[in-house]
Amino acid sequence: MAHGAGGMASAALFEAVFAPALSNPALDAREDGAVLDLPPGRLVVTTDSFVVRPRRFPGGSLGDLAVHGSLNDLAAMGADPVALTAAFVIEEGLPIAELRLLVGDLAAAAAAAGVPVVAGDTKVVESGAADGLYVTTTGIGVIPAHRPRLCAGAVELGDAVLVSGTIGDHGIAVLLARGDLALEADLMSDTAAVHGLAAVLLDTVPGVRWLRDPTRGGVASALNELAELCGLAIELDESAIPVHPAVAGASELLGLDPLYIANEGKLVAVVAAEYASAALAAWRSHPLGAASAIIGRVIAEPAGMVIGRTGFGGTRVIDLLVGDPLPRIC
Amino acid sequence: MAHGAGGMASAALFEAVFAPALSNPALDAREDGAVLDLPPGRLVVTTDSFVVRPRRFPGGSLGDLAVHGSLNDLAAMGADPVALTAAFVIEEGLPIAELRLLVGDLAAAAAAAGVPVVAGDTKVVESGAADGLYVTTTGIGVIPAHRPRLCAGAVELGDAVLVSGTIGDHGIAVLLARGDLALEADLMSDTAAVHGLAAVLLDTVPGVRWLRDPTRGGVASALNELAELCGLAIELDESAIPVHPAVAGASELLGLDPLYIANEGKLVAVVAAEYASAALAAWRSHPLGAASAIIGRVIAEPAGMVIGRTGFGGTRVIDLLVGDPLPRIC
Repeated sequence: MAHGAGGMASAALFEAVFAPALSNPALDAREDGAVLDLPPGRLVVTTDSFVVRPRRFPGGSLGDLAVHGSLNDLAAMGADPVALTAAFVIEEGLPIAELRLLVGDLAAAAAAAGVPVVAGDTKVVESGAADGLYVTTTGIGVIPAHRPRLCAGAVELGDAVLVSGTIGDHGIAVLLARGDLALEADLMSDTAAVHGLAAVLLDTVPGVRWLRDPTRGGVASALNELAELCGLAIELDESAIPVHPAVAGASELLGLDPLYIANEGKLVAVVAAEYASAALAAWRSHPLGAASAIIGRVIAEPAGMVIGRTGFGGTRVIDLLVGDPLPRIC
Repeated sequence: MAHGAGGMASAALFEAVFAPALSNPALDAREDGAVLDLPPGRLVVTTDSFVVRPRRFPGGSLGDLAVHGSLNDLAAMGADPVALTAAFVIEEGLPIAELRLLVGDLAAAAAAAGVPVVAGDTKVVESGAADGLYVTTTGIGVIPAHRPRLCAGAVELGDAVLVSGTIGDHGIAVLLARGDLALEADLMSDTAAVHGLAAVLLDTVPGVRWLRDPTRGGVASALNELAELCGLAIELDESAIPVHPAVAGASELLGLDPLYIANEGKLVAVVAAEYASAALAAWRSHPLGAASAIIGRVIAEPAGMVIGRTGFGGTRVIDLLVGDPLPRIC
């Protein structure tokens, strides 16, 4: 407990675990906050808490998920990342070795994205008062002036809907890693920072209207929100949606729909129809977008809804998720 | 649990509890992040998690503490607040009525400070996986160009040390509110936003070198950190340090030293000696600084240490806190 109290033990924990992993001039100044020099453009800020269970899963961990989650929210706003903050609520008794590994994952993910962690905080709570570790990150980014204004209001009839790869990998990988389903599959979380994928699209293709990283609630929730905000409908070609065979298999067994399963390394875009194939080519040229696809289009009716067109010529309403099949997925 | 899953129940929780309390254009845009227009100056970012127990105590609650904590870190950097983000980890079963009250406190504190909460997140974890509610706030602020650069390196021999009021009120008030000490006292937490107190000092008095909000670890920890960073010593006149009688009494009974007890509505400043009385006058002119005092000075030896001069002419070393008498105080 002393490690969270602000005195010598707090300082020792910071110096032993956090400072070596995260060192950068702003953090090393040991002040109450960080002073940042911003590139030109509009400032964007986003925040998320990460409570994923288990803390380590095939393809990633709570540490890198906490970085990717906030970077991807910035990417979906069309912003290049500038800095991150990270606040840790640590349960007393969490092994220091595990904490060090998770902070190492966080540091590696931030370094890979070229984004410094400029400010942070640690609190220690009693054994039983948290489930090991919760991490809250805030992303600070800047939208360069040349980028289009992305918003639901910019979406037009006939626009194309694209996804940057297979859907549901993260949610199913975490679910299987919990081990209480007696299911195994050769599947990794897609956890990754997608700001490069956003930049290649926004900086080389005109006509991009809207971007989103479909995390909790999956592609279906992101598109339902869009449909409601823009007052139009989204029609999906269900057979065009890329799904990893292991995700398809596990979803079928568990009665889940991959459209509702969380991703953490994907983007969904709405692009003017005439630039849809250029957008697809841009994404496919990027290592994280090799499996990207055009999965649907914006239509007029039924306004505010998402419709799936099945392989057999039928249609179904892809509604907002009501219950929650997958808690603590991020 | 469904309320944290990103679907309809998440949206319902947001619309029922968070949106009405926190409404502002950035948050109301319902995007993954907020686009901010910044006043001129240098950007500052700071983050803290709040895990205080109990969640409500005389003078405040987890809700307003989470706002004051981040605003006060900005103030200590010399920054005017621009925006806040807030991320909530909610234990399943926390009564919605209590959540609504705490979010209301947070919203009221932010509104009183004139700072919008522009982005947020909610996660729900199982019963037993958190202690009711943890809140992580990030403060975004701007240092106006005319303000001095505050840093330990600017501190000079002979500078005066000031505190803006009685010390230890927050820590002792929270400790007594836990009710397991069978002690009662007429004492309120000092939780408040001190950016006005910082501004009146920085904008009307020259020679301000360093500012800090002495939270966890108290005034002693803040000054020890300063002494180490600037390589000089701090000498405190212990009889000049303002302490509420209830804090003095409870501290004596419990074997605590108010210098190590957390505050959440105070500032400590180091000011050039010739401006010390002007600084005192500036603070005393502010509603939050009526009890401010000059409590010490910067001396050469013993370098890196804080020394207390007692009423009887003796001296003692005021070392960095080693253990933690008061966990979960913020």
